[in-house]
Amino acid sequence: MKKLNGGVTAAKGYMAAAAAAGIKYKGRTDMALVYSRTPAVCAGAFTTNVVKAAPVYWDKEIVAKGNGVHAVVLNSGIANACTGKEGKERNFYMASEIAGQLGVKPEEVLTASTGVIGVLMEKSPLSKGAELLKKALSDTEEAGTEAAEAIMTTDTVSKEAAACFEADGKTVTLGGMSKGSGMIHPNMATMLSVTTTDAAISAGDLQELVSEIVSDTFNMISVDRDTSTNDTYLVLANGESGVEIKKGTKAYEDFREALFYVSCELAKKMAGDGEGCTKLLEVQVTHCQSKDKAKVLSKSVITSNLVKTAVYGSDANWGRILCALGYAGVDFHPDKVDVTIEAEGEELMLVRDGAAADYSEEKATKLLSQKEVTVICDMKEGEASATAWGCDLTYDYVKINGDYRS
Amino acid sequence: MKKLNGGVTAAKGYMAAAAAAGIKYKGRTDMALVYSRTPAVCAGAFTTNVVKAAPVYWDKEIVAKGNGVHAVVLNSGIANACTGKEGKERNFYMASEIAGQLGVKPEEVLTASTGVIGVLMEKSPLSKGAELLKKALSDTEEAGTEAAEAIMTTDTVSKEAAACFEADGKTVTLGGMSKGSGMIHPNMATMLSVTTTDAAISAGDLQELVSEIVSDTFNMISVDRDTSTNDTYLVLANGESGVEIKKGTKAYEDFREALFYVSCELAKKMAGDGEGCTKLLEVQVTHCQSKDKAKVLSKSVITSNLVKTAVYGSDANWGRILCALGYAGVDFHPDKVDVTIEAEGEELMLVRDGAAADYSEEKATKLLSQKEVTVICDMKEGEASATAWGCDLTYDYVKINGDYRS
Repeated sequence: MKKLNGGVTAAKGYMAAAAAAGIKYKGRTDMALVYSRTPAVCAGAFTTNVVKAAPVYWDKEIVAKGNGVHAVVLNSGIANACTGKEGKERNFYMASEIAGQLGVKPEEVLTASTGVIGVLMEKSPLSKGAELLKKALSDTEEAGTEAAEAIMTTDTVSKEAAACFEADGKTVTLGGMSKGSGMIHPNMATMLSVTTTDAAISAGDLQELVSEIVSDTFNMISVDRDTSTNDTYLVLANGESGVEIKKGTKAYEDFREALFYVSCELAKKMAGDGEGCTKLLEVQVTHCQSKDKAKVLSKSVITSNLVKTAVYGSDANWGRILCALGYAGVDFHPDKVDVTIEAEGEELMLVRDGAAADYSEEKATKLLSQKEVTVICDMKEGEASATAWGCDLTYDYVKINGDYRS
Repeated sequence: MKKLNGGVTAAKGYMAAAAAAGIKYKGRTDMALVYSRTPAVCAGAFTTNVVKAAPVYWDKEIVAKGNGVHAVVLNSGIANACTGKEGKERNFYMASEIAGQLGVKPEEVLTASTGVIGVLMEKSPLSKGAELLKKALSDTEEAGTEAAEAIMTTDTVSKEAAACFEADGKTVTLGGMSKGSGMIHPNMATMLSVTTTDAAISAGDLQELVSEIVSDTFNMISVDRDTSTNDTYLVLANGESGVEIKKGTKAYEDFREALFYVSCELAKKMAGDGEGCTKLLEVQVTHCQSKDKAKVLSKSVITSNLVKTAVYGSDANWGRILCALGYAGVDFHPDKVDVTIEAEGEELMLVRDGAAADYSEEKATKLLSQKEVTVICDMKEGEASATAWGCDLTYDYVKINGDYRS
């Protein structure tokens, strides 16, 4: 596998575009389109929130049917959630306008929305946006980046990742984009994300891989423990590389590795750009009895407001880490746990056998002051491990969310 | 039932004291003692955190044995959690020093600690504190208040509540104190709290009532979703009123009412004094299928960082309320839910049948700007209801916790 620059236009046969449709924001782009000239097989994962946005209902039905799709249209500014029947009509309108521009059926256009809940989208920006998007479609790397920018809300940077591998002398490419950065909590995708690939793979096999990979990547990040109503992760595979991905082959393993890489990169980029955050926090729980237990423990630490504020303050308040492990809802031996922090290639053990290790507070503060901090909790009870990603909790998180709508 | 001023010294036969022992803080009191001259029956509820502080182990054993106790000693500054065998020895030392001063057995002295995790308490402040506490013991209301002040950490006000009722021409009194205000999350007491009463009641009956009442009061508050390692709620009953509380009598119902009142007041005071908070947030979930479901839903709303920041900003961002209901992990019909806010006796419906009601943003902001705000989520599916209490999430929460230890 080779890492690449770029995003949704990296793979063969895909184009992307962005447009300033004026859905809510002024003076910035707020609609994005990803288009595959060849009908693409599609898989997805969606929010588990009981309250689901209109586009989530629409996409779930299309993905379940397993027919080929041509496009994904996304918008920022309005989430189209809690908008009743009219919201579903507007979502259909958005898909239809794009379908009209592309000369395909509405059912071949997936949708995704992000922004404020409870507000209805107007029709005219959607028509205008569809027209602009059609005109702007391009297969350049820049077009992919512009699409990634158009779906940003409180994100401070756009998020893309891409990779390729060789099979049968041909190149298979994958590329994706995603947006965070609030209402981010594991339980499916926790964001909007689209990955495109020119691999040829069956809808069933693709869905199986997506479900497996989501549980170790997107579902292992949290910014604020709030699982959105709109979370959508879509993977399109149009087969244009000419490489068939079949179970039991090396190409299948390579494809899995590349899809995992793209998903994991996008997930980490979302965690590291959480609302108001200054640091990416990685929590590894190692030597645990089972992977499920390790996941529960690692998520409990990354979601603790007290851990998050301590990391913000570069304070090695390891008691909060043990405390968060302790209320995770699974059993373990507190007197066995070791806790080590790691940053910039340096390590420091804070806790040995559940009590304070002999460490330098000064060095701890230095490590915790880095942009990327890893906490390793060694449970010393088994062989399983898991990793979760989060961020610190800062004044700016409160600022951003105390006054989001205005 | 009649509401009273006062706290742990309100009931007959109890004395309290505070002392500046110098355990960690300088220039303030940090040890408190509650003493009953008559041996008291005792019941308790403790943290469910796998990582438990030394005093929690100590108290659980004593409460389980069901023998009479004479005192509770509490300290702030150091939590005596994650301190291994030595921590347990220091906890025994604290109980023994008090027992020596009072002329009782160490097993008749309950303990409770709050403060920083992972630090060992020194012996000399404990001896000094025990001596000072013995000298300061008094049955005045002021002594109760001083005890309540000595256990404060980041609390901004001390917390007391008391009530009495008549039975057989005699007066039964109950009074309690508690401290918050961070690491507060339902799953038992989420704090330190002691209630004393002069009722005569069996240990078994008292424990049954305590367990029942805790689940509707202390376990329904949350400041930051972090369940502490030290949560301890103790109720002492010394029988000095001469009134026996037996199941099936009016006195039993009156006692339950008074104990519920004292617990609920203390719980709400803790929620309203959450770290850095400016508002008490009450969330009622009504017309729900079951009480358990109503509890899960109401807790999900009070613990949502996005709801908490919106309340801080007095922003009627009701989409976040529906979103938090939606990820609570229980099923319901999103299209049926009504959401109403209430403050200062005024009501405003924000959501009707899962979508925006026709309301004035100006009025919504006015209501949300009050010190106490109630959110009512009407599920329209049954007859059960539940109430949870929390607070807003502010810059000051981040400030307090970004730099707690120094």
